[in-house]
Amino acid sequence: MAAAQMLQKPLAEFLQLVGERQQTQLQASLKTEVADAETLFSAMRYAALGPGKRLRPALVYACAGTLGGANFDPVACDAPAAALECIHAYSLVHDDLPAMDDDDLRRGRPTCHVEFDQATAILAGDALQTRAFELLLHCDAAPALKLQMLAELAQASGARGMVAGQAIDLAAVNRSLDPVALEQMHHLKTGALIRASARIGALLGGADESQLQAVTGYAEALGLAFQVRDDILDVTTDTATLGKTQGADAARNKPTYVSLLGLDAARDKLQQLQRDALAALDDLGGDATLLRQLADYVVQRRH
Amino acid sequence: MAAAQMLQKPLAEFLQLVGERQQTQLQASLKTEVADAETLFSAMRYAALGPGKRLRPALVYACAGTLGGANFDPVACDAPAAALECIHAYSLVHDDLPAMDDDDLRRGRPTCHVEFDQATAILAGDALQTRAFELLLHCDAAPALKLQMLAELAQASGARGMVAGQAIDLAAVNRSLDPVALEQMHHLKTGALIRASARIGALLGGADESQLQAVTGYAEALGLAFQVRDDILDVTTDTATLGKTQGADAARNKPTYVSLLGLDAARDKLQQLQRDALAALDDLGGDATLLRQLADYVVQRRH
Repeated sequence: MAAAQMLQKPLAEFLQLVGERQQTQLQASLKTEVADAETLFSAMRYAALGPGKRLRPALVYACAGTLGGANFDPVACDAPAAALECIHAYSLVHDDLPAMDDDDLRRGRPTCHVEFDQATAILAGDALQTRAFELLLHCDAAPALKLQMLAELAQASGARGMVAGQAIDLAAVNRSLDPVALEQMHHLKTGALIRASARIGALLGGADESQLQAVTGYAEALGLAFQVRDDILDVTTDTATLGKTQGADAARNKPTYVSLLGLDAARDKLQQLQRDALAALDDLGGDATLLRQLADYVVQRRH
Repeated sequence: MAAAQMLQKPLAEFLQLVGERQQTQLQASLKTEVADAETLFSAMRYAALGPGKRLRPALVYACAGTLGGANFDPVACDAPAAALECIHAYSLVHDDLPAMDDDDLRRGRPTCHVEFDQATAILAGDALQTRAFELLLHCDAAPALKLQMLAELAQASGARGMVAGQAIDLAAVNRSLDPVALEQMHHLKTGALIRASARIGALLGGADESQLQAVTGYAEALGLAFQVRDDILDVTTDTATLGKTQGADAARNKPTYVSLLGLDAARDKLQQLQRDALAALDDLGGDATLLRQLADYVVQRRH
């Protein structure tokens, strides 16, 4: 299939293609390399290869395709997109641990520490983080681009990004956050990696500085919209559909957009963020249909 | 102080200088960057800045100095050495967790999850890993060298290295390993990062391929010697001197060189490894006094 065709499919087909490419890439990247550590590799595959939305990989391909146009090469996106998925998977494994959110169900299956054990889950998360950096280190990009992508990934993942967000989130249990603090927490906890996904895709697509800025604005609104939608689904959708425990945030007394604003205002907020995401694309130039559809998907998704 | 002088000091002074440089570097690299996540950064500093031997940083400076000669620049080693220390510190924090080795004492102080809590310890370890990659990404090296060092670090840290070793170690509790399997486990668990420290130092010192091979052979023997010495100290030295719980391995029924070979044969093994390490240096050319002294130190250390 010609690369450009991947981008011209309806969103559902595009997402399915992303899922298939990532399945292949992650299976190859998480093969058992140390025979005596088979359980470790099994747990890594269990965490990364489970049924997931692959939103972060989708953003990589979609941004690379939108910016790259005729030069778009999905093969160049495979490893970088898998790197983002490995970071995401590691964060879910660690966040689900008993000492953290203590969740038994994820993506409709037992969480990693339930399926294996806590020690294995901690180590699988650790090794998935390392593997994310290795995927970028050994991808086909030129050295300068590789270093740019690595810097994006590291900034988004660590103590200035995702991990800080999770730390703030844990500290907020049983306490109230004002909406500004809640937004800051989500910008770090989920927003930073979604932003990095879009920026890494844009870098792969050869974005100039102004295009990179537009994509960043789009992704920041999209990331927050994703979280608001999550909070709404947490109170309106059953466990079976969600694939994770319904009402978990409320049960843990965690502040959410719904608990802070109420359901109606949370829905208004979601629509505003969707408008913000689409408005950011106006500065992009070219055909951003796929990115618009992705924004609609994030806002309308049922799980 | 001229750079070369750092290398001509007696070992104890060299190690103290390394400790001081790393204290400065790590303090600067682990400053609180997100005000709301102050506890996370505190825990990262607690883990990385505690009293430690700084063996991995010492290997970086010593190998860079030995290979670099008159061109040796300790400043160029500061961030890469701190990267190795961050990986080491993260591995200790996670290994000490209740779900893993369940240790309360490390470097003479409460372990990170005892001083803070388990969730914070997990996150601090996660963020220290990311920070290690950031330290290399943002150091002053040329892009090609940076990518080489990053690849060394990633290979040593992840599922092909340290994490695989820890997984094998955990699986060996209450089981017997033969000496070959025990050696393989240690090559991964502690050897890989010690090897990477020496190789990163050698790369910083401009080593050619044959010098890199010599340093690798030296570090592989040194890394295993370090572990054999650890196993001997675990049965011959008290908790106060060790700074960690004496007899912990025996109490957990973990296979060690002493339990497998007996104390005398373990001591013979240690001396053989020391000879191997020194023999590898014969292929290096130049003045390897400091590396010889480091090997003596590893074999003779009291804690």
